[in-house]
Amino acid sequence: MVYRVKARTVEGRRVAGLLSTDKFTTARLMEARAAERIGFGAGALSVAASLQVQRLETAAKRSFDVLPAYFFGDGRSEFRPDGGFKPDKDTLGGKGANLHSMTEAGISVPPGFTIPTTETNRYFVQDNGQLPDGLMDVVMQKVEMVEAATGNKFGDEDRPQLFSVRSGAKFSMPGMMDTILNLGLNNKTVLGLAKAANNERFAWDSYRRFIQMFSNVVLGVKKDVLEEILSEKKVSRGVKNDTELTVDDLKELVAEYKAKLKELGAEVPQDERRQLELAIEAVMKSSNNERAIVYKRDFNIPKEIVSAVNVQAMVFGNMGEDSATGVGFTRNPETGANEFYGEFLSNAQGEDVVAGVRTPLKLKRLAEVMPEAYAQLREVTTRLEKFFRNVQDFEFTIERGKLYMLQTRDGKRSAQAAVNIAVDLVEEGAITIEEALMMIEPEQMSHLLHPVFDPEEKKVAIKAGRLLGQGINASPGAAVGRIEFTAEAVVLATANDTKDKKTKVILVRKETNPDDISGMKAAQGILTATGGATSHAALVGRQMGKPAVVGFSAAEVDEKARTIRIGDRVFKEGDILSIDGTTGEVFAGEIMTLPSEIKRVVEGQLKAEDSPVYQRYMKVLGWAKEAAELEVWANADTAKDVKIADAFEAQGVGLARTEHMFFGDDRIPYMVAMILSETPAEKQPFLDKILAMQRSDFISLFEVMKGRPVTIRTIDPPLHEFLPKTDADIDKLLSSIHSVALVEQLERKLGISKEGVTRDELGEELWLALREKVKRRSAELHEANPMMGHRGTRLGITNPEITAMQARAIFEAAFAVARKGIPVKPKIMIPLVGFAAELKDQATIVREVHAELEKEHGPIAFQLGTMIEVPRGGLTADEIALLAEFFSFGTNDLHQYTLGFSRDDAGKFIAPYIDKGIIPADPTQKIDQPGTGKLMWLAVQLGRETRPDLEIGICGEHGGEPTSVEFCHALGLNYVSASPYRIPVARMAAAQAWIKERRIEDELRKSAKVLQEASK
Amino acid sequence: MVYRVKARTVEGRRVAGLLSTDKFTTARLMEARAAERIGFGAGALSVAASLQVQRLETAAKRSFDVLPAYFFGDGRSEFRPDGGFKPDKDTLGGKGANLHSMTEAGISVPPGFTIPTTETNRYFVQDNGQLPDGLMDVVMQKVEMVEAATGNKFGDEDRPQLFSVRSGAKFSMPGMMDTILNLGLNNKTVLGLAKAANNERFAWDSYRRFIQMFSNVVLGVKKDVLEEILSEKKVSRGVKNDTELTVDDLKELVAEYKAKLKELGAEVPQDERRQLELAIEAVMKSSNNERAIVYKRDFNIPKEIVSAVNVQAMVFGNMGEDSATGVGFTRNPETGANEFYGEFLSNAQGEDVVAGVRTPLKLKRLAEVMPEAYAQLREVTTRLEKFFRNVQDFEFTIERGKLYMLQTRDGKRSAQAAVNIAVDLVEEGAITIEEALMMIEPEQMSHLLHPVFDPEEKKVAIKAGRLLGQGINASPGAAVGRIEFTAEAVVLATANDTKDKKTKVILVRKETNPDDISGMKAAQGILTATGGATSHAALVGRQMGKPAVVGFSAAEVDEKARTIRIGDRVFKEGDILSIDGTTGEVFAGEIMTLPSEIKRVVEGQLKAEDSPVYQRYMKVLGWAKEAAELEVWANADTAKDVKIADAFEAQGVGLARTEHMFFGDDRIPYMVAMILSETPAEKQPFLDKILAMQRSDFISLFEVMKGRPVTIRTIDPPLHEFLPKTDADIDKLLSSIHSVALVEQLERKLGISKEGVTRDELGEELWLALREKVKRRSAELHEANPMMGHRGTRLGITNPEITAMQARAIFEAAFAVARKGIPVKPKIMIPLVGFAAELKDQATIVREVHAELEKEHGPIAFQLGTMIEVPRGGLTADEIALLAEFFSFGTNDLHQYTLGFSRDDAGKFIAPYIDKGIIPADPTQKIDQPGTGKLMWLAVQLGRETRPDLEIGICGEHGGEPTSVEFCHALGLNYVSASPYRIPVARMAAAQAWIKERRIEDELRKSAKVLQEASK
Repeated sequence: MVYRVKARTVEGRRVAGLLSTDKFTTARLMEARAAERIGFGAGALSVAASLQVQRLETAAKRSFDVLPAYFFGDGRSEFRPDGGFKPDKDTLGGKGANLHSMTEAGISVPPGFTIPTTETNRYFVQDNGQLPDGLMDVVMQKVEMVEAATGNKFGDEDRPQLFSVRSGAKFSMPGMMDTILNLGLNNKTVLGLAKAANNERFAWDSYRRFIQMFSNVVLGVKKDVLEEILSEKKVSRGVKNDTELTVDDLKELVAEYKAKLKELGAEVPQDERRQLELAIEAVMKSSNNERAIVYKRDFNIPKEIVSAVNVQAMVFGNMGEDSATGVGFTRNPETGANEFYGEFLSNAQGEDVVAGVRTPLKLKRLAEVMPEAYAQLREVTTRLEKFFRNVQDFEFTIERGKLYMLQTRDGKRSAQAAVNIAVDLVEEGAITIEEALMMIEPEQMSHLLHPVFDPEEKKVAIKAGRLLGQGINASPGAAVGRIEFTAEAVVLATANDTKDKKTKVILVRKETNPDDISGMKAAQGILTATGGATSHAALVGRQMGKPAVVGFSAAEVDEKARTIRIGDRVFKEGDILSIDGTTGEVFAGEIMTLPSEIKRVVEGQLKAEDSPVYQRYMKVLGWAKEAAELEVWANADTAKDVKIADAFEAQGVGLARTEHMFFGDDRIPYMVAMILSETPAEKQPFLDKILAMQRSDFISLFEVMKGRPVTIRTIDPPLHEFLPKTDADIDKLLSSIHSVALVEQLERKLGISKEGVTRDELGEELWLALREKVKRRSAELHEANPMMGHRGTRLGITNPEITAMQARAIFEAAFAVARKGIPVKPKIMIPLVGFAAELKDQATIVREVHAELEKEHGPIAFQLGTMIEVPRGGLTADEIALLAEFFSFGTNDLHQYTLGFSRDDAGKFIAPYIDKGIIPADPTQKIDQPGTGKLMWLAVQLGRETRPDLEIGICGEHGGEPTSVEFCHALGLNYVSASPYRIPVARMAAAQAWIKERRIEDELRKSAKVLQEASK
Repeated sequence: MVYRVKARTVEGRRVAGLLSTDKFTTARLMEARAAERIGFGAGALSVAASLQVQRLETAAKRSFDVLPAYFFGDGRSEFRPDGGFKPDKDTLGGKGANLHSMTEAGISVPPGFTIPTTETNRYFVQDNGQLPDGLMDVVMQKVEMVEAATGNKFGDEDRPQLFSVRSGAKFSMPGMMDTILNLGLNNKTVLGLAKAANNERFAWDSYRRFIQMFSNVVLGVKKDVLEEILSEKKVSRGVKNDTELTVDDLKELVAEYKAKLKELGAEVPQDERRQLELAIEAVMKSSNNERAIVYKRDFNIPKEIVSAVNVQAMVFGNMGEDSATGVGFTRNPETGANEFYGEFLSNAQGEDVVAGVRTPLKLKRLAEVMPEAYAQLREVTTRLEKFFRNVQDFEFTIERGKLYMLQTRDGKRSAQAAVNIAVDLVEEGAITIEEALMMIEPEQMSHLLHPVFDPEEKKVAIKAGRLLGQGINASPGAAVGRIEFTAEAVVLATANDTKDKKTKVILVRKETNPDDISGMKAAQGILTATGGATSHAALVGRQMGKPAVVGFSAAEVDEKARTIRIGDRVFKEGDILSIDGTTGEVFAGEIMTLPSEIKRVVEGQLKAEDSPVYQRYMKVLGWAKEAAELEVWANADTAKDVKIADAFEAQGVGLARTEHMFFGDDRIPYMVAMILSETPAEKQPFLDKILAMQRSDFISLFEVMKGRPVTIRTIDPPLHEFLPKTDADIDKLLSSIHSVALVEQLERKLGISKEGVTRDELGEELWLALREKVKRRSAELHEANPMMGHRGTRLGITNPEITAMQARAIFEAAFAVARKGIPVKPKIMIPLVGFAAELKDQATIVREVHAELEKEHGPIAFQLGTMIEVPRGGLTADEIALLAEFFSFGTNDLHQYTLGFSRDDAGKFIAPYIDKGIIPADPTQKIDQPGTGKLMWLAVQLGRETRPDLEIGICGEHGGEPTSVEFCHALGLNYVSASPYRIPVARMAAAQAWIKERRIEDELRKSAKVLQEASK
């Protein structure tokens, strides 16, 4: 056995090494590509890996050997890696890096120091449970440096140096412990503070607050415990506000706090050094407290990210009328307008601005109160915006007339502001287009396409308790309407609508199915109790650009009783609900919505030239299109879809699902009749009718796309999806018998030859016989696991006449459009291929039809390709590429098979999986890179081994999700295909991917140089 | 884009090349392993590939350049590749190779020549549709050589040389065109033949027969056409037999045949050369005629295999009483006894032996009739057996006292004969053990384990029209019994059985489910209308060693009416059916069965020492065990299973499915109660009871296996499988309430505290409430695609208390057994792992329980591993191997996910897929090597990259299927685990795999030498 294993490993190991799971992340793949490009040659992956190792080693070395705290103050920073200053967020955290930067830039910042965020800290604090040995000695050295800068002294009874202690990771994480202020106060220093500030009340109030904060944040005592004592004190003193308490009251409070804490076995140490030590430890540990874990999960921040600790000299905005504190933005974060924005309070501390006890003033009014400080603030913040090349969100304090900047960071902004700021900064020449593109979160591009709830109304509704809960935000946008529980009811309710009068309905279902399409079309929004982000309702919702909240598991939907019960509240048919598909929130009653201007342009209700909003939006998208390597195509089945795709300048149609075209009320009866037919000859007349309809569908796709590629997928879903299941649904179908064609069935099968037949005419017996037939066929077609059943190419192979009909429809449409002088570029895509022979079978049918039609109409070019959505398709992509001229990853299905996660059922364990950290994100939403992603990579390599110019795209829902788009870029795909309204998001993500990769390339170049020099 | 693609290909292409789909076959993998072993080093795969190319090139060169026909006769053969003689079946076909061999061995064979089977022939005849240019010139040269040997002349009017023309591929294919005799006869040569044979009737009868054969086989005229004329002739002459026709009758017949053929536009050429050309072409084309294609498909012969053509001088056994013809075996092919076996007819042609007009005599009586020829025949056939080192199946003709051997080949034999012959030949010193092992088809080892229908009775039944049809042969063996349609009915029917009186029942169901287990246990056999080879009925049938025919689609089963309709015959409850699980046949009424002696020993009904049959069987298995690299373990859940496994010397238990242990009537109520519980605390009492049961199950496994590894899998199926679905089933469960524990539920939920409750006692209202509860939970747990739902490790993660309970049961059992001084080797296997983190979660639970119990009981070792059955598990095997100490491929599921083929649904398209040649075999039965197999290879490489000594096995049903076992060997697995009764098959396949691989290695050594010398 030993010998054999040995014999197998030489080649095997090499492959295995190349396929190591940890290589299949966007970052590693990009790194490999970049390394390859800058000339590392064949060993690129391993060179990249060795660089990675070097980096980790350096990081580890630094944390163990190098001083683990960096002072900032007096215009200098101790943090100077590689000799040159660089505000390194990875090491110092966002907040820390900016404090160091501001200090170096000569901006007045209270001095302090940063304990960096490193693997070592993580190890010591998270895993080992204690601070690194010797850390406090270093900390005390830094404290001395602060003391030297301020002239105060930590723990001094006369001029006590107080500190704020704050967390600050690479990414902002509000879920983490944030801040302890006034650290260093104790029974003695409080007296010194009173003296120094010449304000006894201020000192005792600070002490009281410090005890509250410390006991809560560091000692873990619940807030209520001390708050209650405070409330009692106010009641006993007959006052309403804290500010009305006297010095004595506050002194009493401090004593009572201490007594209470003692009772609980907790204690705020008097020793200021011990206070600091505990606070530092608490900040470090808070990186993985429960809230932080939830926050990281919700915002897809890696679990490994830990916080740095910033210890900074306190300054006080509450030292009198020449003191103040405030927050602001260098531009308006709601609109993006270039205006000074923010608020402040005189003679106050930061807390007070938030607490809402006093009403803060607009920042502009600071000019009136403290003109000098105001001018200084304007000057400083303008510099900050230039320095950081982005809009800044800052905090400041004015202590006795002197301005201190406490924090600055890139300002979060609304989607609208993001677009405006990006365009403005480029036009001002302040930043490059690349920087502008990196400033907008891809997802923000979609926010601008959906109606939103009026933010003010929403706040009111939440206060009023009208928020019923939160489901999965499946398709963004806000919708309001009366609820209906069946597609019919929605159609009925909206039947008499005119162009000007629309009845707004929310379709509420346990889950939707293809029968509900008409109702979904007519509804304003969709709410389902079950299903995940790729459930039918979610897919169709996104497809239609219709707000949808799915998996709203708090609700019990009783479709029979036509009620939805949420907790103890029951809503019935006709009641009003408001749903927010962007957030997943569901509200009782109506909340006013604001329409999307861009959507109005895209849908032709507003002219582009009348909408500057649209113009700026398209300007950004134009930059993105220019900057991206990946093309962005559209998943579009209908004329309406392609028009939207065209408005967003889609570079092709990557997926037109022909089966969606069968679900119309005028079409489905033919489909059903076809399915009920038993021989190809019986099927033919129905196929002919479907052919005519499909042809006209395809004509409109080709006409709009004008020579851009249009990829049409042959039939995919199992036939039973087309058949009605219940008696009522069957009867409904049968009653459309006279307008359509089931009658032909009847003629042959039941000997009836009348042209139009109703139930009465037909007679009960025959009616029931026909109903039975449908049910029997439905039962025959029933499957235990339809997702792995008789669908996709399997249908085409067992029903070759359907493939032939579809090929004919496509080519006839192409000829019709080409005859009008419009160029056409049809691509035929065979779904669910796992075996090359499947594709061969279908290709033969298609090429036969093509050859036959070319004889009649002359030449027309087309391409034939396949979806890669069964794992076997990916594993044997080299064989499949012998026949396929293009691949398109159907990641909706590919991930289901690869993970064995049924999209309809996985909801039950995906949530606990994410909670337990087993998976980082829902794989139905983001591509599972190490698993499904590795298989995709393999398919790309194998496919291009056979056919180096193989065009490869993705048309699963992931094609419109930013992290997945970046991964597709890193895989070297040619395009992503997304729902029309996801095109802007995909395009932005594609542009950012390429920009990020080039930045990695720059980094690598530098590292390589360092390595080369080191090895000399 | 171009640049990027280029940048990606360097490493990517290398990997892709290594992963080319065509490398993932047993033969290529074995070749690679062998090449590696003999020192080709790292480039082994490519060296092997280059050898392959060289071989193909050589073959192609030979077909174009070298004489494409080889003479044999006069004690010599023209076929001498590599200088030395070698009967090469690949080139000459089986029949041809043996004719050449016999000739060279000095045995009297009529001279002739062989046109070899080559790619060239295939190309010219199959694709191009015509014979290679110049072939007929070569053929005529060979004809001249035959003429020189016999002294006759082809087409001569005096001493015409006649030929037989026969097909003969590498594998015997009865589906192909077989033989044309008497070729060379025409209006003139018939006269010569009459003269030479001094028998006019013989000559004209030969001519008549030749026209019939030629027109049918070469010209494609239906047999009936000329047969009809023959019949009419007999009627008009008032005779019954052909032999009664006169010479004139025969002459008339020839004329009438010709006239009829002319009428049909067909004609037997008079030109003998043209006859020969057409016959050769027909044989070549027959390699891919419809029958051959079906045959190849049914017997898994590669499509590419084509036939050689053997043209041989005719000899005649019908030249008088000193002539004869016969067939025989060197040993008895039914029993294996060393006795001369066969039959002959004096003065007859081969045809007559088959036609049954005259009754042939036993071969031994030839000694009386022609003692000299008999002695010669015995001598020759004894030499043949020695020469070919195997029992021979031969044909001979005695022409005027002279013996000619017409054919010899390895004799097909029954399973019993195969074992006996193998043992005898080894004991006689005639062959090596290795050769003996290669003589037995692995599947034959299983035939000896099952009762079979008495062959005579079966023939009678078929003649009487009692054969009702054929389903899928899911679990071998014959069974007879009255039919019952529910498990209850079976249990009821067999309730009063005693040790001596057994009621035989066949359980007939549409399909079975876990509720049917008790009925399946009590039944003799299982017949289902739906389902495939891995359906529940098939799996459990094989597991229990119980005959099962599944997917018997000709039947309509009405479980309500308790009838099964097959065509227009209806069988009702109590009627007798006989089913043959080895063939899939279903018969009306009773057919006597013969029991398997080996099975009686294995199941303890007969002592091993009293059964020579068993001893010989085990001797062979012992050889196989010795010869194999792969170990063979057992899938065994119960004490009964492991005892059988032990009797077959299983080297371990590779899969003990704990959930099967939950399905007993005394257990399932606890399971249901557990599932109905809502909190871990509520679950605990039920878990405790299940724990005790599981512990005792495990104790019996450990006790039997005595220190061999026992791999126990934690719970796998979705919980809804445990819940009853219909009211009746729920009521049945509820009525067992007083004997078990659902009452505890009632106590808490419904406020009832009575210990034992019946429906009456409980009252209707509460009964219904409880029933509703079960149904509601069932509905909650319902899944759209249960195969990809909440099962396997996902259950363990969301229900950690189940994993903990199972771990505790395993360890407690291990301690209990170890305390008795019996060594134990428990292995815990977590199913359905796709993410390393899943395994980590479960491993943590298991290790916690283990640590806790070790504190109490002292140390006990165990291993923790996982099944690889989700594609993602295979793709990320490097990560998973960080935690897993062993892998076991669950190929039942792995292939489902990899192909997207649901085992319950794929039946609908697998048959048309095989028919259309899209897949070569049912992937549920044989591992799909290029797809699923590639993924397995990847998992092996990745897993052993992390953990070089990783133990890897397979426990899917494929572990007992010969081609899959060979593939597992080629992958380098450590063991296959099979159902107990499949162990002998697996062991034989494992031994053969290693022998085949070493033979490949020998071949490679030779080829390498040739290559090395050529490159000098």
